[in-house]
Amino acid sequence: MRTLKLTIAYDGTRYAGWQAQAGPQAADGGPPASQRPTIQGALERVLRTVLQERVMVVGSGRTDAGVHAEGQVAHVRTRSAMPARRLLRSVNQLLPADLAVLRIEEAPEGFHARFDARRKRYRYRLFTGPVVPPFIRPYVHHVRAPLNVPLMRREAAALRGRHDFRAFARASSWRRTGSRTVTAVALRRKGPELHLEVEGNGFLHTMVRSIAGTLIDVGRGRLAPGTARRMLRTGERRLAGTTAPAKGLSLVDVRYPGDGG
Amino acid sequence: MRTLKLTIAYDGTRYAGWQAQAGPQAADGGPPASQRPTIQGALERVLRTVLQERVMVVGSGRTDAGVHAEGQVAHVRTRSAMPARRLLRSVNQLLPADLAVLRIEEAPEGFHARFDARRKRYRYRLFTGPVVPPFIRPYVHHVRAPLNVPLMRREAAALRGRHDFRAFARASSWRRTGSRTVTAVALRRKGPELHLEVEGNGFLHTMVRSIAGTLIDVGRGRLAPGTARRMLRTGERRLAGTTAPAKGLSLVDVRYPGDGG
Repeated sequence: MRTLKLTIAYDGTRYAGWQAQAGPQAADGGPPASQRPTIQGALERVLRTVLQERVMVVGSGRTDAGVHAEGQVAHVRTRSAMPARRLLRSVNQLLPADLAVLRIEEAPEGFHARFDARRKRYRYRLFTGPVVPPFIRPYVHHVRAPLNVPLMRREAAALRGRHDFRAFARASSWRRTGSRTVTAVALRRKGPELHLEVEGNGFLHTMVRSIAGTLIDVGRGRLAPGTARRMLRTGERRLAGTTAPAKGLSLVDVRYPGDGG
Repeated sequence: MRTLKLTIAYDGTRYAGWQAQAGPQAADGGPPASQRPTIQGALERVLRTVLQERVMVVGSGRTDAGVHAEGQVAHVRTRSAMPARRLLRSVNQLLPADLAVLRIEEAPEGFHARFDARRKRYRYRLFTGPVVPPFIRPYVHHVRAPLNVPLMRREAAALRGRHDFRAFARASSWRRTGSRTVTAVALRRKGPELHLEVEGNGFLHTMVRSIAGTLIDVGRGRLAPGTARRMLRTGERRLAGTTAPAKGLSLVDVRYPGDGG
């Protein structure tokens, strides 16, 4: 058996997410999630055609309906001897335009995209100008209210480190513990955009969107400064700001031991 | 009468261009140009609804079917007293997602978006990596062949200044003269992208796409270095490289007297 590491980019707009969720769930606009395709499903279908073999595509983790990825990582185990370059070309010819495999690399036999992942980096894009240019509409959350960015930066700093993030997650998403380590968090100005970048060893369900929403609500004066710190201390979900919409979020990259950097 | 200056952005993918061309014309993919909407038409329809008055939207110039704009400029004359901010909001609420008015400003009564334009800047985006990420597929031309960028830069330098550019244009697009001034031309590396930026006082039909195509063909070794200079000297269209596809091209901005910079 051969193990392949796939780096994947997608525009999540029309997908039910990386993997269909069990049970009924509200979709972020568009048809119900159950009727929309999944990233994993689309990849498995195309790989099956190209490799002439059923394969399972194991991602580093799920992304929700409507969330994008610039560098999701997955692994596949196959008996095929097809060179990675040819496989890459064939797979991309068959994939829809909103889903692409950017790289295929040979990986050590035991490589596991989920268990071996050390760090993930997400970017949440806010657009703060008056009119969103058409090119980026599917990828940004438009905030019309003026934002106090220095205040948001101070709020964000409280998130760094190891904390119980359960107040930033859907209740169903943590079992034994909501403890996660955020290794870096930053708010960067990019012209009319404001990017929230969060890096960590793992994330609870909707955690980044809940962080984004809470920071926005602090920045626009709807929530008191210090809310994030109080949420970490008390674990109280009801203190959180409005969860920011899926379309502003993108999984930027996933790091593994030996990746360097 | 009041004159308004509009700054407009669009994803040109599904449009027949700024304005429908007279006569039959092959479209760059999609339905024939005659069945596709025009940017000008879409703007005039929405402005008529909002202003309750027929208006003409006069652009700085046409853009072809499939060409994008980050900063097209147009003017409108109206009797309406509606504040520019309210007009901006109302217009954008009615426009489709791939077309937006970024700014509306009061302009001197005699302002004319076409006659007064001093400089235009276009960007042609080449993607030179192996796989184009989904987010930018509508906006880049994918070149798989290795490109000799230093050679392309030397070739591009020959275009600077006042020349007869008829060899870079469809024959129908120049009447008395093909003489234009290119004030700046540059090739910039942006990660896996290569951007050709061309600024000038005016452009012939398909001129930037023909420049892009010629530079690409020189860069990949299909055309001899010095081709651009020969084209300027002889005016011979048949020397040109393959005209690069519309989707890589964007009108970045248009400058007027008093704009500064």
